[in-house]
Amino acid sequence: MTHSRDVVQMEHSWTNARLATMTDDGLGLIDDGVITSANGRIVYAGPADGAPTKAAKTTDCGGRLITPGLIDCHTHLVHGGNRANEWAMRLEGASYEDIARAGGGIVSTMRATRAASEAELVDTALPRLDALIAEGVTTIEIKSGYGLDTENELKMLRAARALGERRRIRVAPTFLGAHALPPEYRDNGDGYIDLVCNEMIPAAAALATAADAFCEGIGFSPAQCERVIEAAQAHGLAVKLHAEQLSALSGSALAARHGALSADHLEYATDGDVATMAAAGTVAVLLPGAYYFMRETQLPPIAAMRRHGVRIALATDNNPGTSPTTSLLLMLNMGATMFGLTVVEALRGVTVNAAAALGLCAEIGTLEAGKACDLAIWDVTDPAELVYRIGFNPLHQRIKDGQ
Amino acid sequence: MTHSRDVVQMEHSWTNARLATMTDDGLGLIDDGVITSANGRIVYAGPADGAPTKAAKTTDCGGRLITPGLIDCHTHLVHGGNRANEWAMRLEGASYEDIARAGGGIVSTMRATRAASEAELVDTALPRLDALIAEGVTTIEIKSGYGLDTENELKMLRAARALGERRRIRVAPTFLGAHALPPEYRDNGDGYIDLVCNEMIPAAAALATAADAFCEGIGFSPAQCERVIEAAQAHGLAVKLHAEQLSALSGSALAARHGALSADHLEYATDGDVATMAAAGTVAVLLPGAYYFMRETQLPPIAAMRRHGVRIALATDNNPGTSPTTSLLLMLNMGATMFGLTVVEALRGVTVNAAAALGLCAEIGTLEAGKACDLAIWDVTDPAELVYRIGFNPLHQRIKDGQ
Ligand SMILES: [Zn+2]
Ligand SMILES: [Zn+2]
Repeated sequence: MTHSRDVVQMEHSWTNARLATMTDDGLGLIDDGVITSANGRIVYAGPADGAPTKAAKTTDCGGRLITPGLIDCHTHLVHGGNRANEWAMRLEGASYEDIARAGGGIVSTMRATRAASEAELVDTALPRLDALIAEGVTTIEIKSGYGLDTENELKMLRAARALGERRRIRVAPTFLGAHALPPEYRDNGDGYIDLVCNEMIPAAAALATAADAFCEGIGFSPAQCERVIEAAQAHGLAVKLHAEQLSALSGSALAARHGALSADHLEYATDGDVATMAAAGTVAVLLPGAYYFMRETQLPPIAAMRRHGVRIALATDNNPGTSPTTSLLLMLNMGATMFGLTVVEALRGVTVNAAAALGLCAEIGTLEAGKACDLAIWDVTDPAELVYRIGFNPLHQRIKDGQ
Repeated sequence: MTHSRDVVQMEHSWTNARLATMTDDGLGLIDDGVITSANGRIVYAGPADGAPTKAAKTTDCGGRLITPGLIDCHTHLVHGGNRANEWAMRLEGASYEDIARAGGGIVSTMRATRAASEAELVDTALPRLDALIAEGVTTIEIKSGYGLDTENELKMLRAARALGERRRIRVAPTFLGAHALPPEYRDNGDGYIDLVCNEMIPAAAALATAADAFCEGIGFSPAQCERVIEAAQAHGLAVKLHAEQLSALSGSALAARHGALSADHLEYATDGDVATMAAAGTVAVLLPGAYYFMRETQLPPIAAMRRHGVRIALATDNNPGTSPTTSLLLMLNMGATMFGLTVVEALRGVTVNAAAALGLCAEIGTLEAGKACDLAIWDVTDPAELVYRIGFNPLHQRIKDGQ
């Protein structure tokens, strides 16, 4: 109903659709809805009654459901090699020591990633990216963190950005130099954090939009993570944190106190951590694929998140060691089946709340005028079907920037 | 090396492949392998050195892995409606009573199945079947069991058979009239079993290859199931049994004593049940999708199965109430991740042992001369990758009967 609608040339109208706009606190369902785009942006998303009448092209959606394009807000999609063989050994009863002796573990991914060229990293990531795209994903976050030296961390970030040129997808690159301690710095974690803060972050700031760290007994201490956060913010990067995955260090509260976009994993987060996140508006990114693959039994504190009003997002965590999954639809089901999320929570977790976890609320995540026209059109009418099915992809069409 | 190779016209050779033949007790890996077919059958599967040299057509597989076409040996793929909405209600905290009052539960699937025509059952099953086919499935078992009267049980079996004509896939139809008690027979289980044995089985025998029943407190008693088994066998049907899913009634041992092809689910099977199955050669069909979706915590007795040498198969159990999954590859991962199966056990579970669960060992399940030329050609070289990845489909090509 704004004046702009009258002067903009409408490019495309999608009519006869059921919209899940994700506005307000629910799914924002609109039956007999219409979306109209111009210049790649949504100009109108609402009831047919009230929609602009003229567009260069019109698509009758046959009553199908349209959601915002899906957002995978936490991945390690760029990496060398895979760890299938190491996992097979574990199933045969091999211990972590056996596997380490056989060259396994995160160091094996670091070696494979360092050995790969930027082009090779892009090429091996493409099939994984294509699997996500086939499910209607239009925005993906991709972290560095297997280079673990300046040159290779920057190579990973460049590969992440290159993926956004090879496919029609928005890539949010995150610098995760403080993912693990490289062998060169064994027993010198503070020395490595010096490198991360003084050399890597200044160089990565031009390639990434956020920085992240792994706050954990087997990762980095809260004090070390705080140094990373402060250095990142000094260079204009948003911050995120892997926190409370294996133990309770209150990394999530630390991140929240620093205004982090998100804290991720959170199985061991306390009620106090969650309250701090709620006060700061920090999003809780849950990663059911890692929970599942690692046979974790500690559930993230969903009840506390609801009570305090923390926004919940869901992501694949795609990575070779703890979550080799490339299905965001399966994460919807796992979030519901294993964590008890409702259909509404699960779907908001891969749309509006995932956008918040990336600081992209103004651009994506809902069907609203002014946002990018990123749509997923589904061969279902009931949004619950997207969460209920397991290993089934009902995507009818994916629209990125109106096309 | 047999004489027949010299006189048969070889139609197709697949060269430069890594074969997982599934012969012996392992994967039967052959590097630099060749498969040659004639008249839709495998004529040779072995090392390149020794392969027939002439075929009308040759495909260089570029080092890819070839397994037998996958076999999904336990599904309820034909059914009316879905239960997404009922599941969404449960996530919102609705009780089973609430759902029953809202018309949910197995009776809702029965009503939708009865209301659908045979053609509608086929049409709604096709997208699910296509999802399995896209993963290299070349044989599928499909059960009746939502009609629960003679006319509608036969309609389901005809729909199952029709699916085998609509797509290039082998369908093994199983009669499961004793799946649940229809409302017409409330409080008269024995009367319903009379109907199953005296009317349904004689009519179903021409359409199905096996009969099955749900042996459970909420299903039918062992004595009732034994009547079904005996009637089925009197009409020339092989038998299978849903057993020990929710409680220990020793249905699996009962089935084994009657020479059943398989007992399925088995979370509550005892060591004695497993020993009886081993002695009878009854296959243990594990259904990790149902275990996962129902949040079951009782693990099937894998250690006892290994100790007694019971063959283990894996299947989707695709059904709308307890396992709405259409990914057999995901069942490989769930079998390993949740049940602790090894890569070898998981892959044998969807090939050679799944063939045994259908009584089709002479036809399918291994790459061996004389069997149907049903192949799955994968964009991986390490068989472990098929089990390790979650929600990723690396199928390169599917071959059914040599084509
Ligand atoms: Zn991560
Ligand atoms: Zn079943």
